[in-house]
Amino acid sequence: MKVQGRDTRTIWLEADGVGVGIIDQTRLPHEFVTVRLTDLSEAAHAIRAMQVRGAPLIGATAAYGVALALGADASDRSLDEACGILLATRPTAINLRWSVDEMRRLLSPLPARERIARAYRRAGEICEEDIVVNRAMGTHGVALIQAAWRKKGERGAVEILTHCNAGWLAAVDWGTGLAPIYRAQELGIPLHVWVDETRPRNQGASLTAWELREQGIPHTVIVDNAGGHLIQRGRVDLCLVGTDRTTASGDVANKIGTYLKALAAKDNAVPFYVALPSTTIDWSIEDGLRDIPIEERDSREVTEIAGRLPDGTIGRVQLTPDGSEAANFAFDVTPARLVTGLITERGICPASREGLLALFPERRVKKSA
Amino acid sequence: MKVQGRDTRTIWLEADGVGVGIIDQTRLPHEFVTVRLTDLSEAAHAIRAMQVRGAPLIGATAAYGVALALGADASDRSLDEACGILLATRPTAINLRWSVDEMRRLLSPLPARERIARAYRRAGEICEEDIVVNRAMGTHGVALIQAAWRKKGERGAVEILTHCNAGWLAAVDWGTGLAPIYRAQELGIPLHVWVDETRPRNQGASLTAWELREQGIPHTVIVDNAGGHLIQRGRVDLCLVGTDRTTASGDVANKIGTYLKALAAKDNAVPFYVALPSTTIDWSIEDGLRDIPIEERDSREVTEIAGRLPDGTIGRVQLTPDGSEAANFAFDVTPARLVTGLITERGICPASREGLLALFPERRVKKSA
Repeated sequence: MKVQGRDTRTIWLEADGVGVGIIDQTRLPHEFVTVRLTDLSEAAHAIRAMQVRGAPLIGATAAYGVALALGADASDRSLDEACGILLATRPTAINLRWSVDEMRRLLSPLPARERIARAYRRAGEICEEDIVVNRAMGTHGVALIQAAWRKKGERGAVEILTHCNAGWLAAVDWGTGLAPIYRAQELGIPLHVWVDETRPRNQGASLTAWELREQGIPHTVIVDNAGGHLIQRGRVDLCLVGTDRTTASGDVANKIGTYLKALAAKDNAVPFYVALPSTTIDWSIEDGLRDIPIEERDSREVTEIAGRLPDGTIGRVQLTPDGSEAANFAFDVTPARLVTGLITERGICPASREGLLALFPERRVKKSA
Repeated sequence: MKVQGRDTRTIWLEADGVGVGIIDQTRLPHEFVTVRLTDLSEAAHAIRAMQVRGAPLIGATAAYGVALALGADASDRSLDEACGILLATRPTAINLRWSVDEMRRLLSPLPARERIARAYRRAGEICEEDIVVNRAMGTHGVALIQAAWRKKGERGAVEILTHCNAGWLAAVDWGTGLAPIYRAQELGIPLHVWVDETRPRNQGASLTAWELREQGIPHTVIVDNAGGHLIQRGRVDLCLVGTDRTTASGDVANKIGTYLKALAAKDNAVPFYVALPSTTIDWSIEDGLRDIPIEERDSREVTEIAGRLPDGTIGRVQLTPDGSEAANFAFDVTPARLVTGLITERGICPASREGLLALFPERRVKKSA
């Protein structure tokens, strides 16, 4: 998608074929800064510190992290260590595990001397596959926006609410939840996006708003508290979000607060769709509430916030009184019963075991084997 | 309640019997600053700029605002003008209207020379009545906390979630939603309060957290997104909030985001109670969604946030990219069906017309008259 009018991705192999370029997303929306990752520790740091975030992009970065680690030491021990370090960076995102497992499965059997080139090639493929998958989600998901547009008599604009950042910054390009929006823009459907600020890390206010601004899509930032009111007042036609992990029965773990918006959508019969590449599905678990670990992050993400000071520099301010504790839960689980449907690269399905298996029948075979 | 160990109110008549003292709540939690109001425009500004906020305190400040206006000019025209200016400061809070109407009703028939003293006396009475009413809500509401304590076998602590600030800072003393908590503290019931940050103005993180810290009540600040997760995981025994306006059928308008927490409480069968002095009931309306105007405030409350910089000074930072629009809805409406009960100065009742009329039978008579 566009940055200052130029097509840009979130991660790329640099011209020397060794370093890996990323956008430092912690500097957005006020500064557009790219970073060159040169070794495993920098790649792990980029994930942990959320310079890169979003389930698909975490997976892509981890794949390159393995390649960087092998570039320094292509031994079995180095491969194992790299996989362990990368897996520990973020506990909830399932793509991370998928990507690390994929790299290990592929590279482990190879002699050490062949591993480096193969690792870089596979990391590059994972990025390309991500783009194909996300574009497909856009193509499938845009039907929902077209339906909403017809339903309102093709007047005004389709009003979409989104939470956190499920845009191209969360993936390699296109995004998950926002892919249908970018596709709708191509088709010329008038759109307006309500952007949840998404405390504590403000990915909505800082990343989604920035993406939409760069892409020229009309949008309005709201606090996370406001979505219920807008849904209740008929000012939202459709909710579109991403997910960090989806269970085999269609429960979705996504940025904290997603559950609340899904409740409001259900209470007002507004469609609530979750977009996900199938790599985000954890086929090994059913019950999201029971089985998905919820990451707790540093409480300073709640007690402090960063932004641009009047002099243009970036500063942090403390919001809470000294001596008040804070807790920081990164995700919540939205039960499948609140999800109207799942948008995948193979099409849209009900958020249920049967719905998912209809799109991914190979999983049914595996289960009965 | 306590500030640095000393009993303090939110509003008081100064020693000279003319000026009106308030706590400048926009400076909390980092600075405790009091302000002396000396005329109508300062009183109106204090309400509009939210130096004072919370339905009961807005009412008390407006009453003193009328007294200050008459102190300068006790004519009919001055009284009318003062009432008009004060009524226009905040459109949603019903206590404001109640208080201004009360002052006008009382003062209008009096000769101008008698108005000033009577206005000050009535404003003082409104403050004292507010304290009596809020203490009564604490006495009634504490039964809910006692019941929760027994239900969990008197182990651990009663876990309460609150939104915005319904504490003594929202009233003259004691508060509405927090009054039962302060009463429970007196009775020695172990408590822990989850404090919603409450964007955009952060009344939870800055006012409720500060109140609870000064009062020595264990609490944890969370982002507004987190409450659903905590409720879903069984980590909340009881939700207690205030309201800015309640309809005759029990719908409640309260700080934006309240509706979302009520949905989560309902979805998980957690009790959700709203505390209100009966002056907050608007008997003239039934349907909160249709009939309560929702104030829209300056979008800079969303795009910027104030806090303490590392050097100890207070600064504002911009959160959103330049060129991204923001919208700022101050309240939402929680339908009565999501409210377990209303805590009033006369007791607790179901959130319904019949429930309210059982506690306020004089309203039934009026209706059939």
